[in-house]
Amino acid sequence: MQFVVPFAAERPKTRLADVLGQAERRGFARAMLRDVLDAIRGAGHEPQVLATAPVSVAAPVTVDERPLSEAVNARIEATVAERGSPLGVAMADLALATPAAVGRLCSSTGGVVIAPGRGGGTNALVVTEPSFRVDYHGISFRDHVRAADEAGAAVARVDSMRLATDVDEPPDLVEVLLHADGRACDWLREAGFELAVQDGRATVRRA
Amino acid sequence: MQFVVPFAAERPKTRLADVLGQAERRGFARAMLRDVLDAIRGAGHEPQVLATAPVSVAAPVTVDERPLSEAVNARIEATVAERGSPLGVAMADLALATPAAVGRLCSSTGGVVIAPGRGGGTNALVVTEPSFRVDYHGISFRDHVRAADEAGAAVARVDSMRLATDVDEPPDLVEVLLHADGRACDWLREAGFELAVQDGRATVRRA
Repeated sequence: MQFVVPFAAERPKTRLADVLGQAERRGFARAMLRDVLDAIRGAGHEPQVLATAPVSVAAPVTVDERPLSEAVNARIEATVAERGSPLGVAMADLALATPAAVGRLCSSTGGVVIAPGRGGGTNALVVTEPSFRVDYHGISFRDHVRAADEAGAAVARVDSMRLATDVDEPPDLVEVLLHADGRACDWLREAGFELAVQDGRATVRRA
Repeated sequence: MQFVVPFAAERPKTRLADVLGQAERRGFARAMLRDVLDAIRGAGHEPQVLATAPVSVAAPVTVDERPLSEAVNARIEATVAERGSPLGVAMADLALATPAAVGRLCSSTGGVVIAPGRGGGTNALVVTEPSFRVDYHGISFRDHVRAADEAGAAVARVDSMRLATDVDEPPDLVEVLLHADGRACDWLREAGFELAVQDGRATVRRA
C-alpha cells in the first residue's frame, strides 16, 4: 500500500522550543520522520514524504506547499478516487511506530481506518472510501469519524498507544526514551536526554 | 482469569480537584471503576476490587489498607506463587478499557504481560511468573520490565491506547468523552462536560 507522510520541513516541532534549539528541532524531526518511514517499510508498504520544502531522506519526496489537509486530500483524490487504490497517511512524528503497529492499521477492515492521537488528533489513516476527505483542524478524530459516517463508509479504530503518541511537547520525550528504539531515541540520548523522576512522575532531563 | 483492581476508595483522583469537587471525584472514580470491572467481565474474566476502604460495587471487594504495591504483591503471592494461577491487575481509572483491549492483554504470551501507561506507569499486568513482584513507585513500567528480566520471565508489552490512558488529570477527560461510552463518559456528560477547542487543541468545558 502507498503511504504518504506529511512533513513540515521548515519549522518543525515548535512546541519543543523550550527544550530544543531550532537546528536541534530540525534534526530530531528528521530522525522521527526516518523512524516512521522505517516502520511503514517494515510493514511491507511504500512510504512517500509529502513535504512543505525539499528534504533529504531515503524515500520519494513530493514538495507541496499547500496547507496539510489540502495536500493530503489531493493525494487521496489521485490515489483512492482516481486509481481505486487504498492510501495510508501517517504523521511524521510517530516516533514509537513499529512495523507491527502499522500492520495492525493496515489489516483493519473499513472504508476509513483511523488511529487516533492523544487529544483528539488523527495520527494515522488508511482510506479506501473514494469520497472521504481529511480536515486536520480542531478535533479531527471526531470529525473524521463523522465524515466517514456521512460518506457511508465503515469506520475502524485502531487501539494503539504507539500510533496514538505524536511527539509534540516535552512530556512526549518520556515516551520516546521509554518505548522507542530507533533514530529518534538515539538522537535524544546522544543529545544528553535521559529519564528522571520529579515529584513522583517521569520526566526528562538533559545532562 | 482472576483480576484484581486496586481502588483508592477514600480520596480518589486528587489531580482532578481543579475541575471536580470532592464528592464528584468519588462519584466519577466509582463510575470508572465500574467500567473497568465491566471490561474485565466482558473479556470473560473475574474481577475483584482491592480497596483501601469498603466500596459498594457488583464485584467481590477485599479491603486492604496496605500501600498499593504491598497489597498487590500479597495477591500475586497467594494466586500466582501459591496456587499457580495467573493473575491480572488493572488500575481502576482505565475508563477507555474495553473487553477487546483486556482480551489482547490476556492473550499475550509471557511470564509478565504489561500494558504501559502514559508517563512510564504500569496500567495493567498479567502475571504468571511466580517470583515477580510489583513496585508502582517511580517509572514503574521500566522497573517492571527489569524485574521480569531479572526473574527470567519473558516480557510482553501490549500496545493499547485504551489501556495506556489512565484518567488522572483534566486533559484525560478529553479522551473519556472521545473514546469511552460507559458509565464514566455518561457521568461526565451528565455533569455538564463537553468537548471544546481552545487554541487549536481539544479540551473540555463544563456547561
